[in-house]
Formats: sequence, C-alpha cells, structure tokens
Amino acid sequence: MSLIVQKFGGTSVANADRVRNVARIVTDTYRQGHDVIVVVSAQGDTTDDLIEKANEINPKASKREMDMLLAAGEEISISLLAMAIESLGFPVVSMLGWQAGFQTTSVNGNARIKRIDTDRLREALDKRNIVVVAGFQGINRFGDISTLGRGGSDTSAVALAAALQAECCQIYTDVDGVYTADPRKVKNARKLEEITYDEMLELATLGAQVLHNRSVEMAKKYNVDLEVRSSLDPVEGTKVKEVVNVEKMLIKGVTRDNNIARISIVGVKDQPGIAFKIFSRLAGAQVNVDIILQSIGRDGTKDIAFTVPQSQGEAAMNAIKDMAEIVGCKHVHYHDNVSKVSVVGAGMESNPGVAARMFEALYDADINIQMISTSEIKISVIINRDMADRAVAAIHDAFIS
Amino acid sequence: MSLIVQKFGGTSVANADRVRNVARIVTDTYRQGHDVIVVVSAQGDTTDDLIEKANEINPKASKREMDMLLAAGEEISISLLAMAIESLGFPVVSMLGWQAGFQTTSVNGNARIKRIDTDRLREALDKRNIVVVAGFQGINRFGDISTLGRGGSDTSAVALAAALQAECCQIYTDVDGVYTADPRKVKNARKLEEITYDEMLELATLGAQVLHNRSVEMAKKYNVDLEVRSSLDPVEGTKVKEVVNVEKMLIKGVTRDNNIARISIVGVKDQPGIAFKIFSRLAGAQVNVDIILQSIGRDGTKDIAFTVPQSQGEAAMNAIKDMAEIVGCKHVHYHDNVSKVSVVGAGMESNPGVAARMFEALYDADINIQMISTSEIKISVIINRDMADRAVAAIHDAFIS
Repeated sequence: MSLIVQKFGGTSVANADRVRNVARIVTDTYRQGHDVIVVVSAQGDTTDDLIEKANEINPKASKREMDMLLAAGEEISISLLAMAIESLGFPVVSMLGWQAGFQTTSVNGNARIKRIDTDRLREALDKRNIVVVAGFQGINRFGDISTLGRGGSDTSAVALAAALQAECCQIYTDVDGVYTADPRKVKNARKLEEITYDEMLELATLGAQVLHNRSVEMAKKYNVDLEVRSSLDPVEGTKVKEVVNVEKMLIKGVTRDNNIARISIVGVKDQPGIAFKIFSRLAGAQVNVDIILQSIGRDGTKDIAFTVPQSQGEAAMNAIKDMAEIVGCKHVHYHDNVSKVSVVGAGMESNPGVAARMFEALYDADINIQMISTSEIKISVIINRDMADRAVAAIHDAFIS
Repeated sequence: MSLIVQKFGGTSVANADRVRNVARIVTDTYRQGHDVIVVVSAQGDTTDDLIEKANEINPKASKREMDMLLAAGEEISISLLAMAIESLGFPVVSMLGWQAGFQTTSVNGNARIKRIDTDRLREALDKRNIVVVAGFQGINRFGDISTLGRGGSDTSAVALAAALQAECCQIYTDVDGVYTADPRKVKNARKLEEITYDEMLELATLGAQVLHNRSVEMAKKYNVDLEVRSSLDPVEGTKVKEVVNVEKMLIKGVTRDNNIARISIVGVKDQPGIAFKIFSRLAGAQVNVDIILQSIGRDGTKDIAFTVPQSQGEAAMNAIKDMAEIVGCKHVHYHDNVSKVSVVGAGMESNPGVAARMFEALYDADINIQMISTSEIKISVIINRDMADRAVAAIHDAFIS
C-alpha cells in the first residue's frame, strides 16, 4: 500500500466548512487505495489568540509553558478533522505529536525533530486507519511538550514522509502551486510544473512564502518528493524534487523581499581586520547578514555596505553603534526604503547572459541598482522599495512572457 | 513538608484577572511552607465552546475524538495559570493528565481513574515546584486521552490527595462553603463549619451542587479531608470529613430538587411479580428510579408510584407504555410539576421527632405531601413544584433559625 502524507495549514481548517472540505480531499485519496497520514496546523487565528491570552497574563512566560499552551491549538484541529472524517464513514484516529512518536530536542519554542518512533503510526496504518497527526509539536526527553517554531507543520509532514518512506508529501495551501512571480502582481506569472529543492530553497528564502525552508531542506536531505497544491482548487500543483525535466524556461521565478534594510559604513580605514570586527559584532547580536559589498579602497579608506532583515535593523544598528571609534569610520547610514528583487533558476549558472538580461530590463524601466549579489542559481539586486513591483514585472516580462 | 491539593473550577479561572487571583491564593499557600498541587478545569465556557465546534462538524463524533478535543481546554488553563505563577516569581510546572500519571479505564467520555503513577509529580514536588495539573483527564491503556465525565476535576483533585496522602484537599468554588439551604432563597441559611461525607453525599445527590458525588465518595473511601472554599472570598469554608464535632443543629441542610417527575401506575393486579416487571423494564432503559411507593391492595388491585429524574421522564414512559397489557393496570399518569424537598443530618436517625417536625412545618404552611421517603440520614417529600421554595423556607425555619 503506497503512503501519501498530506499537510493542511491553518487557513485550510479555519472553520467547519473548510474542515469538511479537507475531510473530502483526504478520504478521496484514501478511496483511491492509498494509506493516508494527514498533518494539520491549528485552526486559523487560534495560535495568535492563544499568544494574546498568554501576553495578557505574563508577557515573559517561559517557553515551556508557552509550548504547553500552543500545543492545544493542534489538539483542537486534529480532533475536529477526525470527527469530519468519521462523519464520512471512514476509519480514522487522531494523534498528538507525542502519540505519533515525535521526539525533539529540548529547546522549547524552536525544537528540532530528533527522530520519530513510528510504531504506533504503523500499527494504526496497518489497521487501515486514516491517521490525523498534530503538526508543529512533539515531546522532549523530559516528557515536556515542545513546538517546532515557524513553519513547523510543514517540517512535521516532511519528517513523517521521510520516516515512513511515503510515496510523496503533499503540502496543501491557499495557492495552487509555485509561480514564476506573485500572480496577484505580475499578470503573466506562470505556474511551474516542477522545481528543484535548491530552486525552491532560494525562492523560499527570497520571500515566496509557499514552503518553509526547514521543510525543503529536510525534503532534499531525505529525498522526499514534495507537491504544493491548493486545498480549494483540485488542479495539479507544483512538484518539488531533486531532478526536474528540462523546461524551456531558464529561470524559475522572480521574487521580491521587502523585509530588508541596507546599512552602509562609510570611510573605514583600509586595513586588515575591519570586516572581521564588524561582522563578528553582528553575529554576536544574532543578526543575519545577507548581501555584503565592500568598495575598493580610496584615500586610505573604504566603504562597507550590507543588508539585514528589516526586523533586525535596530539590533544591527545597536551592535555597531560604537563602530566609529573601533574602525574609525566617518558615518553609519541606515536605509530601510529598499527591496531585494531576485531571479532564481538552476539553468543560469551556465548562462552568463542572464545577469545582463536582468540589468537591461531594469535599465529599460529606469530603475537604479544599489547593490548586486549573485550565486550559482540566483541573482539579486537591491533597489528602492517603491520601484520593486515595477522591477519584478519588468524582469519577469524579459524572461518569461 | 505537608502537601495541600487545591482545585479551582472553570469560573475561578475564566479570565486573566481570575487566573491571577488563583495564582495569588496558590502562592500564598506555598509561601506558608506547604507543597502545593493545583488542579484546574477548563476556563469558563471553553468546554461548551468546544462541544459546539464538534457538533457543527459531527453531532455523532466518537467519544475518543471528543475526549481528544475537550482535553485541550485544561491544557490551556494549566499553562495560563503556570504563567501567572511564574510572573509572581515562584517555581512552577504544569502537567497534563497523562504527564501527572492519571491512568484511567478505557471508557472514553466517562473514564474512571485506575491509578496515579506519582513518580513525576513527586520529582517535581521534591524540587519545590508548585505543580499545576489538568483536571478531568487522563490516559488509558491504549495511550489515548480520556476524560472523567461530569465533576471530573473534583475527582482528579481528591484522587491526587489520596495518592500523595495530602494534608487536605481544598475545593475552591464560587460559594464560600456548604449552607443549610440555598442562601439566595432562604434568608436564614447558615454556613456549616463541618459536615460528614455521608451528609455531603446526600446533599450533593439532592441538588446542592457544591461537590460532585464521585469526589465525595472517593474522599470517604480514602479518608481525604475536604474543604469547600471560595476563590473570591478568603474566609474559612466548610470541612468535609469522617467524624465532625457534634453541633447543636440536628439537621445539616434543607434542599430542593426540581429535576424530578412522578409516575403513577394505577390499578395493577395485586399479584406477585408486578413490581419486578415494571422496574426491570425501567432498569433496562437506564432510568434511575428514586422513591418508590406502593399502596396497600384494595379490590384486588393496587397502585405503584415512583419518581425519576425529569430528564429521563420520556425514556421512563416509553419503557412502560405497554404496561397496561402486561400488568393489567388502568392508567399510567405522568406528573412533572413536582419537586423533592429533603432534610439531611446524621443526627436524625436516633431522633424520631425530626419527621414530625418537618411534616408539621409543611402543614403549617398549608403544603400537601404527595410522597414520603426516609433513610438513616435524610427525609424527603414530593410536593407541588410551585410550593417548593416556600416549603424549603418553612422547614429551614422550623429546624435551624
């Protein structure tokens, strides 16, 4: 019997109608002769509501008690989905993270899955049950409830698919696949049939927000075939796997990320150790630095610019506020009116024309480039934020239309 | 270190302010040098809200999934209370039923506690933690979440007090003790300092609704000292124990129960086996029969009357609807405009004057008695429902004022 793992997010189970809809998708798959494990997140705003309740009582609550609280969200959604499946007349059993065997590390609030003890799951599947598993949660070696942090339910689903060698892991969401650009903003955006793990990782990092990075990394590591599908529209989605059919398209997507800020340190002494001092400070403050640019020295000084997530901008500036003394710079500038626009595609590494075509599209649209960063499968530029949507459309048209 | 178990119901933790109030009561007790285990129910209307969610999806949901759903209610309340205790600077740890070692029978929705594996609780107490335990829930031998049914959290608290040989088990509620009558209705109602388990059992059965019977039975069986206290008013409550100081009062309370209906079977043949046929039918239909009265035979026929909970009235009438044929009776009458009014007190068994004084009070108030039932520690009468409040006041005045 081939096993399919299906994962449904919070919006897919937000109310009774949606839960019934998920029950139909799950039982249709089961009726086709598959074993089915369903992973669900907490309903709609449940997690946010619970966090608000906690903040009202103790804004500095321990992570252990926070995990205990939040885990109740999936307990509600798994039992409701199981009830909906029962009402369609199918055998079903719901399991909390610990019941499904999710053993995690002890870091409450951001635990990692150490292993899944699959005995109970296999036993339930052997009895031909549909198994509804609470995503996002597990248990640590102290017997405490733990949660996996952002995107945790995707990770739960992929981990189950890996542990039980499922045929595939279907991630149901409110879009019907991965697009070459945001279809609400770029009219010619096209849905991809297939995409590689690495391309998906770049897209996720760049703000496409379809799949969480941890889940894609795990899928790549254990070679789990992923499929992104819509829970509301029964069309084919996008498959994420190791090797994909060569498509005509050179690039897989154009993305925009607004959670970004640019920091420039102007006029630092042109001597060894300066970059080390700056970036070890930032690392110490847990700031994720993305693009780094260093100018060629002039008059014995040089400029260093880098980008950080906008949400970490304040922390970054605090970390380097006394840099003038240490590295002897003239000014530290902070800009958060910027966006990162990127093209992603495994084909571009062997095709030097991609960068030129991208820059030409921006030039034609009269958009100035502030910074450039390239990797084997992506090219990113930093531009003014108010031009970002126009830039995405221009680049997308140049490559895909 | 002496251990005190404190139990707080849903209204006592209904919102953030109430949760903080409970945290203060708990930490005050801890500060006095006691070990403290706190048992809490789900917040306010949480359980009803969850049942409504379930009914919307599947009104015939399995009890297993219903228990999974409902157990989330206490998971929320224990973590919130633990957070409130953390914010006061005390060491605390919350535990779900299964983490606290509650092993139950497999009857979902109405499980019984088989035993409590106290290792984890003792370990937490040894580290001087306040332990917040989810009431109402446990785990069965299949590793499934189970719930204990109505009054379950009281039972959880008493079971913990018994298993860990606590000094006492304090049941916090929205009244400050057990009264001789409903203080909202009888102006001279007095709070009892002490009451025996048996008296408390009669009062609970008769509708006083302070403590659930199962918890009082368990307290009696394991000799756990109970105390009923108010979570809003820090006065002494009422102690429930095996032997109480002899008080001047002969009776402990006057109660009224409106969930009652009277069924009369008129003119049955005066021959053996008739009662057996009627009451075995009712037992088969799961109807709880309370008072039974049989008239002395006359003209070869007799009358049988009995009371049932009003909520089971329809089931009772269905069970005996073909009685005319079987026992050859003339009519079956159903009355639900009746109430049961009772006096309870361990002293009355050796004092035949109690019944006379009760009947005299009713006669003085011009209230007709339909049926009478007596036990060692109580006397109950069935009267017209619209006279019930007046009857309670009259009887209470005759004995207590």
